[in-house]
Amino acid sequence: MEQEAGLEVRVDELGNLVGRRKGKKEKPSILIGSHIDTVRGGGRFDGVSGVIGGLEVARLFREAGFTNDHPLEVVVFLAEEPSPFGLSTIGSRAMAGKLTGEHLTSLKDRDGRDLGTAIREMGGRPEALQEAKRSSDDILAYLELHIEQGPDLFQNKIPLGIVKGIVGISRAKIEVTGMNNHAGTTPMSARKDSLAAASEVVLAVEKICRGEEGLVGTVGKIDAFPNVLNVIPGKVVLGMDLRSLNAEGIDQAFRLLRMDLDRMSERRGVQVRMERQVVSIPVTFEAGIIERIRRVCHRLRIPFQEMISGAGHDAMHIAQIARAGMIFVPSQGGRSHCPEEWTEFEHISQATSVLASTIVEIDQEDER
Amino acid sequence: MEQEAGLEVRVDELGNLVGRRKGKKEKPSILIGSHIDTVRGGGRFDGVSGVIGGLEVARLFREAGFTNDHPLEVVVFLAEEPSPFGLSTIGSRAMAGKLTGEHLTSLKDRDGRDLGTAIREMGGRPEALQEAKRSSDDILAYLELHIEQGPDLFQNKIPLGIVKGIVGISRAKIEVTGMNNHAGTTPMSARKDSLAAASEVVLAVEKICRGEEGLVGTVGKIDAFPNVLNVIPGKVVLGMDLRSLNAEGIDQAFRLLRMDLDRMSERRGVQVRMERQVVSIPVTFEAGIIERIRRVCHRLRIPFQEMISGAGHDAMHIAQIARAGMIFVPSQGGRSHCPEEWTEFEHISQATSVLASTIVEIDQEDER
Repeated sequence: MEQEAGLEVRVDELGNLVGRRKGKKEKPSILIGSHIDTVRGGGRFDGVSGVIGGLEVARLFREAGFTNDHPLEVVVFLAEEPSPFGLSTIGSRAMAGKLTGEHLTSLKDRDGRDLGTAIREMGGRPEALQEAKRSSDDILAYLELHIEQGPDLFQNKIPLGIVKGIVGISRAKIEVTGMNNHAGTTPMSARKDSLAAASEVVLAVEKICRGEEGLVGTVGKIDAFPNVLNVIPGKVVLGMDLRSLNAEGIDQAFRLLRMDLDRMSERRGVQVRMERQVVSIPVTFEAGIIERIRRVCHRLRIPFQEMISGAGHDAMHIAQIARAGMIFVPSQGGRSHCPEEWTEFEHISQATSVLASTIVEIDQEDER
Repeated sequence: MEQEAGLEVRVDELGNLVGRRKGKKEKPSILIGSHIDTVRGGGRFDGVSGVIGGLEVARLFREAGFTNDHPLEVVVFLAEEPSPFGLSTIGSRAMAGKLTGEHLTSLKDRDGRDLGTAIREMGGRPEALQEAKRSSDDILAYLELHIEQGPDLFQNKIPLGIVKGIVGISRAKIEVTGMNNHAGTTPMSARKDSLAAASEVVLAVEKICRGEEGLVGTVGKIDAFPNVLNVIPGKVVLGMDLRSLNAEGIDQAFRLLRMDLDRMSERRGVQVRMERQVVSIPVTFEAGIIERIRRVCHRLRIPFQEMISGAGHDAMHIAQIARAGMIFVPSQGGRSHCPEEWTEFEHISQATSVLASTIVEIDQEDER
């Protein structure tokens, strides 16, 4: 990072890796960022494409001998995916001032280690949480290149997406408690089968989301206890994820689901607990940044599509403190978070050109 | 075992622990048996009650100075529950000559260790599999005391059950393969959600079993992959268990389920594989043994109920090679395979008296 791209590298207080190319001015900086962590069973392009793209812009600037007015910072955000600490976008959240001391001490991994300790072990200074926070005073703009992780660009055969906004995400842990008992000796009528009850929950989530335009919902995680062949499961814990650009759509889905759960709980004699966690609210990117990317695409004759992101990204936090935008590249077959995840190198290369040109435009624009 | 109960102890070829009290004759023996292993998250009475009961009979004989005609053997059968090797009633199966060399080499635990190796490590001689096999030539009768593991005796406030038969058990691993994909970016209409599909399977099993008298079915095990919050599960593996005293009822349930799975698979575009494994066929205990237990109960004025066992037991294998019977004691609240499993000591004590008297009767009966 230092040598090839000519960047001065540091780890910030919260564990974000930042490579800085000096500008004529001391600040504000232009940031390019993404992440390099991935989900279990995930692929090689999610996050990494944007970091490589950012490094490539810095390398291009260096090789072209381009002197930027504003410092350029390539940021590798810490823990964008849900880590063992159960919270996603940790690094960008901290940079936006949304990570709290409470997060650092209460979030723990399976070994009981808290988030603050883990960040210290990797070179951060969690006690200096406040210093990791940045603002529009020192960030002129933020741009993120990322794979789409959905099927639209691939199906439409369009090499680039300009992202207008990011859906809001709410999650819930749904705990179904019935009664564990012997699978052979308990008559069907005497059962409180928590897995059968949980199956109704999974299908209810699917049905509700199918019924509301722009809303997607997934039960991605299921753990049954004791999870052995000859015992009726006494407890099942589900992990649900709901997303929409429409905050009210998500609220409504939770209301409908709550009603379904109450009816099912009553009918089956099982207990159902649902804890909602608002992971992020919907975000709309800044019109000026979107217009600049649009102009660059026209100039470079690169076809593009304007779109909504169904996935959360570090950009959603940085958009709270600075002008921000995102560029998408196609995911083959629309697949992501799986080993088959793939993006054509040519598409990443084109998008990197758009990224570089957009940054030059922003860098050279009149002072705000 | 040796000292208090006056038994000579050995581990047989397949790892069954056998304590032998000599008789006037060399053979055939009377066997009392059960197991001491339990399921994960299980209780303290399942199996253990019968072993304690058997030891108590031997101790009673010793203390009373009773000289038995036939040798008395108290057997602790190896691995009655589904062990890490995925097969239940391993020891009694071997004694009945139903365990094969194929079982010993092909069944493996998570570390890849095969069943034969595991048996050797605990003191058995798996290469002498054939010698573990016994027959009616050297077994006069087999009796097993066990907790009911169901609600009948407890609800009817009856202290003892005479078991007339054991249901047959068939199991299946049902593998649902959809397509894993990003939870936020994949439209509801483009999903092949294997957990939603598996939820339909769970509810179909429940519905089919509710519709057939005497049939119980349980999906006790579910594993989703990759089982993370923001990925639509691409694969779900279910473990199902069906039981009935009516073999045809189980066959019919599999046929109905197959039809449901085919329709669901077609509708959702997911693949469903179901492999049926017949664990045991229904067993009816010998009328002479049942009549003897009945007579002893009348004589000791112990109320009893005749019943069917919904759970598999070592007795179902031994019944294939010798006259066999079972005595049940009540399970509090009908609960078993859970930490709350409980049986009143008084009930175990009464049943042990019935066991001892029945054995004396069998021991003293005319030569067959």
